[in-house]
Amino acid sequence: MGSTLGRLFRVTTFGESHGVGLGAVVENIPAGLALGEEDIQIELDRRKPGQSRISTPRKEDDRVTILSGVFEGRTIGSPVAMVVYNENAREKDYSDFSDVYRPSHADYTYHVRYGHRTYRGGGRASARSTIGVVAAGAIARKLLRELAGVKIAAYVSSVHKIIAPDYLSLGADAIREKAESNDVRVPSAELAESMARSIQDARQSGDSLGGTISLLVENLPAGIGDPVFDRLDALLAQAMMAIPATKGIEIGSGFAGSEMTGFDHNDEFYMEDGKIRTRTNRSGGIQGGISNGEPITMRIAFKPTATISREQKSVNEKGEEVKLSVRGRHDPCVLPRAVPIVEAMAAIVLADQYLISQTARIDRIKDQP
Amino acid sequence: MGSTLGRLFRVTTFGESHGVGLGAVVENIPAGLALGEEDIQIELDRRKPGQSRISTPRKEDDRVTILSGVFEGRTIGSPVAMVVYNENAREKDYSDFSDVYRPSHADYTYHVRYGHRTYRGGGRASARSTIGVVAAGAIARKLLRELAGVKIAAYVSSVHKIIAPDYLSLGADAIREKAESNDVRVPSAELAESMARSIQDARQSGDSLGGTISLLVENLPAGIGDPVFDRLDALLAQAMMAIPATKGIEIGSGFAGSEMTGFDHNDEFYMEDGKIRTRTNRSGGIQGGISNGEPITMRIAFKPTATISREQKSVNEKGEEVKLSVRGRHDPCVLPRAVPIVEAMAAIVLADQYLISQTARIDRIKDQP
Amino acid sequence: MGSTLGRLFRVTTFGESHGVGLGAVVENIPAGLALGEEDIQIELDRRKPGQSRISTPRKEDDRVTILSGVFEGRTIGSPVAMVVYNENAREKDYSDFSDVYRPSHADYTYHVRYGHRTYRGGGRASARSTIGVVAAGAIARKLLRELAGVKIAAYVSSVHKIIAPDYLSLGADAIREKAESNDVRVPSAELAESMARSIQDARQSGDSLGGTISLLVENLPAGIGDPVFDRLDALLAQAMMAIPATKGIEIGSGFAGSEMTGFDHNDEFYMEDGKIRTRTNRSGGIQGGISNGEPITMRIAFKPTATISREQKSVNEKGEEVKLSVRGRHDPCVLPRAVPIVEAMAAIVLADQYLISQTARIDRIKDQP
Amino acid sequence: MGSTLGRLFRVTTFGESHGVGLGAVVENIPAGLALGEEDIQIELDRRKPGQSRISTPRKEDDRVTILSGVFEGRTIGSPVAMVVYNENAREKDYSDFSDVYRPSHADYTYHVRYGHRTYRGGGRASARSTIGVVAAGAIARKLLRELAGVKIAAYVSSVHKIIAPDYLSLGADAIREKAESNDVRVPSAELAESMARSIQDARQSGDSLGGTISLLVENLPAGIGDPVFDRLDALLAQAMMAIPATKGIEIGSGFAGSEMTGFDHNDEFYMEDGKIRTRTNRSGGIQGGISNGEPITMRIAFKPTATISREQKSVNEKGEEVKLSVRGRHDPCVLPRAVPIVEAMAAIVLADQYLISQTARIDRIKDQP
Repeated sequence: MGSTLGRLFRVTTFGESHGVGLGAVVENIPAGLALGEEDIQIELDRRKPGQSRISTPRKEDDRVTILSGVFEGRTIGSPVAMVVYNENAREKDYSDFSDVYRPSHADYTYHVRYGHRTYRGGGRASARSTIGVVAAGAIARKLLRELAGVKIAAYVSSVHKIIAPDYLSLGADAIREKAESNDVRVPSAELAESMARSIQDARQSGDSLGGTISLLVENLPAGIGDPVFDRLDALLAQAMMAIPATKGIEIGSGFAGSEMTGFDHNDEFYMEDGKIRTRTNRSGGIQGGISNGEPITMRIAFKPTATISREQKSVNEKGEEVKLSVRGRHDPCVLPRAVPIVEAMAAIVLADQYLISQTARIDRIKDQP
Repeated sequence: MGSTLGRLFRVTTFGESHGVGLGAVVENIPAGLALGEEDIQIELDRRKPGQSRISTPRKEDDRVTILSGVFEGRTIGSPVAMVVYNENAREKDYSDFSDVYRPSHADYTYHVRYGHRTYRGGGRASARSTIGVVAAGAIARKLLRELAGVKIAAYVSSVHKIIAPDYLSLGADAIREKAESNDVRVPSAELAESMARSIQDARQSGDSLGGTISLLVENLPAGIGDPVFDRLDALLAQAMMAIPATKGIEIGSGFAGSEMTGFDHNDEFYMEDGKIRTRTNRSGGIQGGISNGEPITMRIAFKPTATISREQKSVNEKGEEVKLSVRGRHDPCVLPRAVPIVEAMAAIVLADQYLISQTARIDRIKDQP
Repeated sequence: MGSTLGRLFRVTTFGESHGVGLGAVVENIPAGLALGEEDIQIELDRRKPGQSRISTPRKEDDRVTILSGVFEGRTIGSPVAMVVYNENAREKDYSDFSDVYRPSHADYTYHVRYGHRTYRGGGRASARSTIGVVAAGAIARKLLRELAGVKIAAYVSSVHKIIAPDYLSLGADAIREKAESNDVRVPSAELAESMARSIQDARQSGDSLGGTISLLVENLPAGIGDPVFDRLDALLAQAMMAIPATKGIEIGSGFAGSEMTGFDHNDEFYMEDGKIRTRTNRSGGIQGGISNGEPITMRIAFKPTATISREQKSVNEKGEEVKLSVRGRHDPCVLPRAVPIVEAMAAIVLADQYLISQTARIDRIKDQP
Repeated sequence: MGSTLGRLFRVTTFGESHGVGLGAVVENIPAGLALGEEDIQIELDRRKPGQSRISTPRKEDDRVTILSGVFEGRTIGSPVAMVVYNENAREKDYSDFSDVYRPSHADYTYHVRYGHRTYRGGGRASARSTIGVVAAGAIARKLLRELAGVKIAAYVSSVHKIIAPDYLSLGADAIREKAESNDVRVPSAELAESMARSIQDARQSGDSLGGTISLLVENLPAGIGDPVFDRLDALLAQAMMAIPATKGIEIGSGFAGSEMTGFDHNDEFYMEDGKIRTRTNRSGGIQGGISNGEPITMRIAFKPTATISREQKSVNEKGEEVKLSVRGRHDPCVLPRAVPIVEAMAAIVLADQYLISQTARIDRIKDQP
């Protein structure tokens, strides 16, 4: 069950980098949604490696094929299966393979659990396994846009110790536009420059950097979220922490909120154009686990990439202490490519809960299904 | 589905403070576990209100009754249902009830979603609904202790701006002993005193305080956790963020880890007594979503209690802007009573994943079930 | 997971006859449904033992208490937990307990699976464990009636070799009225008399009888059912076969349909008052796993009660071949009391799928949840 | 959720005949199982059309590709995704498409539910959608064989009014061998001849035939099955009734058992070589919903194929009453090709419950997962 996310709008991902292909099956997409491969491809292109000077120089095409669930440009109610084929998968070179457990990687834990190694540059623990998430998220995103005009935008809010100011007030459209115009995906050309430099420096010295991503969701109606365990913030937390390399998540005021008093922290209600609003949004758009109509705001912490080329100490499968130097074309900082993954995870959770909320009240259920 | 947590060891909680009782049904507890009401009661007693000068003066007895699933002191494989009856539930006084949406409460969002209010001091959004979590967690905790000697201990690591040093290295037994010996549940008598004073000051001024709780899990074997979506850290994040008033969670190095470089952050492997260990534990005991045998470490942020007696502005159900003053016997700081809830949530997730891990490898499956 | 039925409208039952109480928790009942204990009690009264000369002389009151999820007479969106307490449960006499595996009972299989015996007259395998099903079914039934005027009526269609004619054409109201007016629950006073006599004869000779129950569901809208695995007929089959003592199920034409040709079996479509109807209903109201608006018709086979007082051969826990004579106040024929259980199972499945069908088409999803 | 079967060993199928491909994703296969495409292909070949004179003359190759989850010939614990591509899918000719609802097909009900037609010879309601079931079943079958030597064999036990004698006592190996040696899949060359003739006659006259399939499972250990709702017979009933064209299922004595008395029906226990056995097997290998170590026996009823070429009356999408003549290369009797589907469904349910049973007792859980 570890590969399935969602209760109703349900996503099952599959695939490893050393296999034939990766992808996802998405169940319970309402019938009638306009959907084509181009809707998926646009998001996959944001995730793929080799996009810029600061990401891995590996080039992968990552073309998606929709296998099922769409007919004449619309979903038909059956599962949508999508696949991205690995190039030259079968001929992959494993000569580089070593029996050393790379520090802070999944090598050791996968070995204990499954009795096998997650092969270098490969395996289910690889970031490449998020292809299915991004593909499924593209459908969720389109569904939310069609149903309620929901907008989802994430951006890199820090790289190492370079911390961006709060850009959430720009709004989703501006964040998307500004962040997509540079290769760091921060909504500031200037910051992009200094962050990129910092990333390139890390690469030069065989090291890597962490950082944070901030997320904004606009236009989500009030009433979404399913207490007590499927509180909207709880489900978003699970989804975000399921992205490789994440170490923390906070919603609204987050950890800083823990240092405030109730009087300062409470979000005062007021009326605006006949609508109930809050003057501040320390709740991050969620109260009691249910959306309140204000923007959803979150921040996610990513550790620095575990794969570095500086020499490290470790142990191998035989239990011998050894030294390890990894060469290869890895990302010294995963943040820029993680932005579409964060958005996809949010979209999946929100689409799922949007559908579930349809049956929360008897006076809103349609008599004729 | 919002009231169910877990895939195999599955907990469904029920109950509101204005109903007859609250509790939980736990499915798929292995048959043969020694279990009695005293195992549950000991944890409920840690959660109940009125324990000390810094919590609400409401006194509730919160006695648990096991309705099913136990015979002659052992589980029999069928669901264990547990209930705690509300005292005088039916005669409760709702004269105090008002139509004002309390700021940063669930009043408004519950109203939108369910078409009704979560009544003051009551409702499913109340902290009282965590009784089922604590009861189910007590079973999970006992199961983990029997199966693998797992120890779970949490403590209050900050109240408002008073931040405790890192006590994780004390180990679970010492944390439990020291934290339980004062009413703040911080493993330091001195800090307990200053935190308690700060909480009482907040109460005096009609205000409330937030803080953080740190969690330590010892003796969890390596190999627990189910990538990609049911990574152990992802499931723990969901469970913690499902506790009322939480705003953030971090695992291992957390947000601070995002400001480190890979070389500094990676946990070097070494051998100790024939066992693979890591010299540091920035991973927080989880790598690639699977436990690595090191202690699990997490920190959870709680916002200040939303219920305060200082006057606030808000709106009512008719959409009128009003002033609101809440009287009542609420906790000015939920942290001390949240400690057993955090532990219970961890126990439920870990017990569930412990059982699921039994079938991860074909060479470990028993031929005769 | 074995104690949970349903995907969205989700029922978890608990309880054994030797414990404190039995019942169910029902999740995701839409908020706002009028509901009281009397709605549940009316169905429990139809199931309880000691109703008549042909059932067990044991008298049990089986009063239900709603613990949660209802406030001021309406559901509030949180789980509804219900409990029926066992009378004198703690003092129950087990002197009668023997270590012999009763033939065609669950004694042996429970022992293998759980390492313990399901105690005589008790245990989770007891018919008493269907109390939770009937209680949950009462809610499902009310929901379906409110949403779409759905009517559900079952009746005893055979006892041993006395086979009733097809009463389905009477319609649900008449079936209910006629069947409830006698203690066999067959819609014919005459047949009731001969069936009752046959049951009493079996009791006299220390034997027991099987039979069949027929089910009719009216007014279920077309479009309910979720191919491919959650076809409506597949889910109904699971639910019915989960009733103790069932050996078979057929829908529409059933086994007899397997001996027809396609031309004779196909249900011709025609128009009636602007509505698409079928002239025959060999499909039993379900085509391709989805309801077609015609009445749902099913028949369920029950084996004769395994508990008989005639002497039988068996083996005991030590593996010795022994003779066994069971005394006790058991039902020589479970059929009459199984009628409300069959109806309850149908109601649960249909309510669940009714809710799920709300999100099957994008053009029917409400923009504002 | 309609496309997922299983709780732990979880199968999600996808695909329609008018799409790019069909297949399945299987989650939670224990790591380390030897598996190759040939294991899958052998079962798909038994299901594919065009095998013989009595099935459809359409020829399809139905080659499977494993996309993920297998490395160097063994499962690795991640989902196994499998796909079978449709040949010439994109260029398919729909000129034959009509707006008439074919009697006893899913045309009308799919239209109501999803707002679209399931296109002739295509759609998710097509028998072709069972490809995923057969592929997943092949893995389940191999897993059960490796773990416990479980053998699964089904055969055609009746075609129209030609009813075979009970061949269950032949045992699984002999049934498989004899049934596979003729194109009807009945374990008798003589019966095969008369059944084949009867099928060809039906085709000649533009008609179709139904029938029954009997299933035998050997070597399933006692203790498998998860009361109360996931009783093994209940789950098998769901799985079988999810096969297109099924109208009924019975286990062990089935409907005939309802006409017996308890004394005649009960399965007497006795000892054989130190093992507890039953002299008769009216229970069909399942007591109280849990396997008892005896062979599992079931019978499934299939209606005659709905697609016939004889002229029928029906209505079209506009609500007009029309006449309908379908030409095409359909199977006049689905039974022979349904045999591997019945076996696959059984295998999926049993593999799932076999894994779940690993955690039923605390004394059987491994300390080190």
